[in-house]
Amino acid sequence: MRTQVAIIGAGPSGLLLGQLLHRAGIETIILEQRSKDYVLGRIRAGVLEQGTVELLDEAGCGSRMRQEGLVHEGIEIAFGGARHRIDLKALTGKTVLVYGQTEVTRDLMEARETAGAPIVYEALSARISDIETGHPRVRYRKDDAEYEIECDYVAGCDGFHGISRQSIPEQALRTYERVYPFGWLGILVDKPPLADELIYVNHPRGFALCSMRSATRSRYYLQCRLDEQVSDWSDERFWDELERRLDPEARKWLQRGPSIEKSIAPLRSFVAEPMRFGNLFLAGDAAHIVPPTGAKGLNLAASDVAYLSRALASRYRSSSTAELDAYPQRALARVWKAVRFSWWMTQMLHRFPEPSGFDERIQAAELEYLFSSKLAQAALAENYVGLPY
Amino acid sequence: MRTQVAIIGAGPSGLLLGQLLHRAGIETIILEQRSKDYVLGRIRAGVLEQGTVELLDEAGCGSRMRQEGLVHEGIEIAFGGARHRIDLKALTGKTVLVYGQTEVTRDLMEARETAGAPIVYEALSARISDIETGHPRVRYRKDDAEYEIECDYVAGCDGFHGISRQSIPEQALRTYERVYPFGWLGILVDKPPLADELIYVNHPRGFALCSMRSATRSRYYLQCRLDEQVSDWSDERFWDELERRLDPEARKWLQRGPSIEKSIAPLRSFVAEPMRFGNLFLAGDAAHIVPPTGAKGLNLAASDVAYLSRALASRYRSSSTAELDAYPQRALARVWKAVRFSWWMTQMLHRFPEPSGFDERIQAAELEYLFSSKLAQAALAENYVGLPY
Repeated sequence: MRTQVAIIGAGPSGLLLGQLLHRAGIETIILEQRSKDYVLGRIRAGVLEQGTVELLDEAGCGSRMRQEGLVHEGIEIAFGGARHRIDLKALTGKTVLVYGQTEVTRDLMEARETAGAPIVYEALSARISDIETGHPRVRYRKDDAEYEIECDYVAGCDGFHGISRQSIPEQALRTYERVYPFGWLGILVDKPPLADELIYVNHPRGFALCSMRSATRSRYYLQCRLDEQVSDWSDERFWDELERRLDPEARKWLQRGPSIEKSIAPLRSFVAEPMRFGNLFLAGDAAHIVPPTGAKGLNLAASDVAYLSRALASRYRSSSTAELDAYPQRALARVWKAVRFSWWMTQMLHRFPEPSGFDERIQAAELEYLFSSKLAQAALAENYVGLPY
Repeated sequence: MRTQVAIIGAGPSGLLLGQLLHRAGIETIILEQRSKDYVLGRIRAGVLEQGTVELLDEAGCGSRMRQEGLVHEGIEIAFGGARHRIDLKALTGKTVLVYGQTEVTRDLMEARETAGAPIVYEALSARISDIETGHPRVRYRKDDAEYEIECDYVAGCDGFHGISRQSIPEQALRTYERVYPFGWLGILVDKPPLADELIYVNHPRGFALCSMRSATRSRYYLQCRLDEQVSDWSDERFWDELERRLDPEARKWLQRGPSIEKSIAPLRSFVAEPMRFGNLFLAGDAAHIVPPTGAKGLNLAASDVAYLSRALASRYRSSSTAELDAYPQRALARVWKAVRFSWWMTQMLHRFPEPSGFDERIQAAELEYLFSSKLAQAALAENYVGLPY
């Protein structure tokens, strides 16, 4: 088989890249290790920046999102028994859209099917070779047969644990990492959310987040220890603990229900530089991970894909590789700003094991300053709604 | 002897408090352990917030400052070979005034002499007693005689190493501290400053600051190790090292000269809470220390003194102690915001020994974000010119 761009991974990055390239007249094949149902079953992010929304429109996949997504004009931060609203709309003129990653993925898959562009699910043991030549190859196994794709470029959109980054020689990458000493225990429940907007809670017992996927489906998170297991947390224990971390007003509106998903995710910041090796380009989680505080993961994958799709389109239009050559630097400049923001939000909102008294008071001072300063709120807001591409 | 308020310390906090109380018709005696010349010989801060300037006007000591002080409408931050200006005036409508702490002290001393209000210099072995009664006493020795002052209140304005905070039982104080793994090597020189505005430099070899005291007197600082001695640093070595940390344009304007003062100061954040015990009230460095990055030390002493002088005036006007009782909380709310800002500036601008790669990149991302965002610059600026009282 031969294609112009082989895309590894059918998550939102790979699918969005495929769709944008398709609309630019560029041929792609997407390889995905898992089944379609498995990919659609993953519960992930749910807050889209305006730039991400516009990109999905540009990809021709925005109609259901525009209909069903919930426009959020603000977020709330709870601390010291009071809630403080950050008015995103008033401070930046922009809003965010609550629309689950699962739904984004579904819309992108449908668009790709309509376009008749190929996705190979359950493509196993994929290997990338000849990366440093003009004809990289991707081999994989499917239903006990071996296949090979020859292409011009490979786009690694297969996440943190994928094969793309692992195909780059270790000495060609520099990696940066921060592992946080806690995780998020998340629960999904078919009950209306307790409030219209997201509530980020910094409580002496730990961080909590009241989020949602739709008007009838809520997503709640609790900061938990890294040595805890999902099996330690019955639904009842989860709801009891969440109630303890909420203010009385929020508690009043909380609707408990049976969890339809429950999982623990560790929190990590990770960046691999550069986002290119030969003719392999990394995008999204394959190159970087942010902790979910600040809702940047999916949005950062989207901006990578925006830069990469434009660079590839320019390459095929003009034969110049200037845009492609500029991709790592352009993408990383925005990546590091989002990594900084996610790290800062994480530092500010979680309770750290054995903090020094000084660190605790600095955290409180950061929040008190934020609540007292329109400028600090506006700086938070411009990051939350997404820095310009 | 009997007075209304005994003030320990004739630095700018004690002198300014004395002057404001004098104008409110309240009697004070200032005790100072050192000689007048010693106090005037201390080289300290040089950047006054607008609030501090207004307070000195209010104290009737502003005329020379208004004449000789240099109005600064911006600062510069150098990083990665480029300089970036933070336009304080455009971003906040406010400016800062460069006028040395030594000059402020001199003006305040003169005002006190004109007012005929007492200062006892070289008052040795001062001890505060009966703090928890309505009649606190301060005893001291001078010229081999013992003296005792009876008063209503004691104001502890005698700095970090003074006796005031030490007079409070240990269990009645909570302290918070961060000691930074570096110091500032400072030099004073009678040469015009290399630029009209302060330049804060984050360089791979370490932080540097190009500051000034007047149009003909410059103050330069270099980040140094804590185990270094002033004697390790000849003037020539200082100038050579400073040049290495400057951009070529700045280097061109640097005028070397013989140092008229050279010293090393360690960097520390420190807060003691509450700022009151019985009828003893702490103000300025006696209660808190900030690293000099951000120029907050003297200004924070001034806002403490503003709160405390108003509270004492209200107490003598109305007999109500409500304002005095509110002093610790009011002062500390502003103190912690300045402690946060000074900590943040210090983290952002210095090179730390053995940083993780992640920390280094977060620092760079913080600066890149700052340079790219008017909102982030405005948030820095509103702290630099001084948060409202």
